[in-house]
Amino acid sequence: MKDIPEKVEKLIDDAKVSFIASVDENGFPNMKAMLVPRKRRDGLKTFWFSTNTSSMRAQQYRKNPKASIYFYEKGRFNYQGVMLIGKMEVMTDAKSKEMIWEVGDRLYYKKGVTDPDYCVLKFTAESGRYYSNFKTESFKIE
Amino acid sequence: MKDIPEKVEKLIDDAKVSFIASVDENGFPNMKAMLVPRKRRDGLKTFWFSTNTSSMRAQQYRKNPKASIYFYEKGRFNYQGVMLIGKMEVMTDAKSKEMIWEVGDRLYYKKGVTDPDYCVLKFTAESGRYYSNFKTESFKIE
Repeated sequence: MKDIPEKVEKLIDDAKVSFIASVDENGFPNMKAMLVPRKRRDGLKTFWFSTNTSSMRAQQYRKNPKASIYFYEKGRFNYQGVMLIGKMEVMTDAKSKEMIWEVGDRLYYKKGVTDPDYCVLKFTAESGRYYSNFKTESFKIE
Repeated sequence: MKDIPEKVEKLIDDAKVSFIASVDENGFPNMKAMLVPRKRRDGLKTFWFSTNTSSMRAQQYRKNPKASIYFYEKGRFNYQGVMLIGKMEVMTDAKSKEMIWEVGDRLYYKKGVTDPDYCVLKFTAESGRYYSNFKTESFKIE
């Protein structure tokens, strides 16, 4: 289990797409594909995504921060996937918004980094499950 | 909105991978990549997947059938995704198991179609959300 973090970090950093899940007001799990996280910090602990303040996911996380994020790789001979479980915060402060802003974002947020429809999803992981080659291992994230 | 089902059916039938989400006993959304459904019936209403009876997902659905399934396509110029929300049933009856059994399954289930670790996930959709080209549309499934 000691070598899980490195394998998983590589899987996440190589991913071309990520998935985030939330629980809606009726208790159903919701999920969607997202761009990969803009930042990853402290190993597998913290991830930052950009999204629309008005998006359904941002609204759901404000009511219920329970979340998971998922990455996978379908290789030629093996399939790998990792789910991280934790909490999602919707950040609208200038510091968070500036931290992950990229020039190309102006295409989507006409008013730039202060655009009120631009916000940041900050995910903090508590545990994970890693799948590779028909085996699943669970792990804690300190 | 009238043309959503056809577009979505094509997206699903073309997909190479699918994703299923559940809610765990602590109320967190869980998700994982799966093989595509073995069968789809009545448009977007019913989907059948094969899985392990002992899998964490099967255990979670027995306690809480609230579920969603997700498919996406990352094209060269456009990104499409669809989430269907509904209930997941864990089926262990011979009829369901025989219906979606394929010869190659013996590789994973040594005892064949009656292998107690082989079971069927039957998903029944209630509503959906379709995303394409920065627009999202919600729809009901009768």
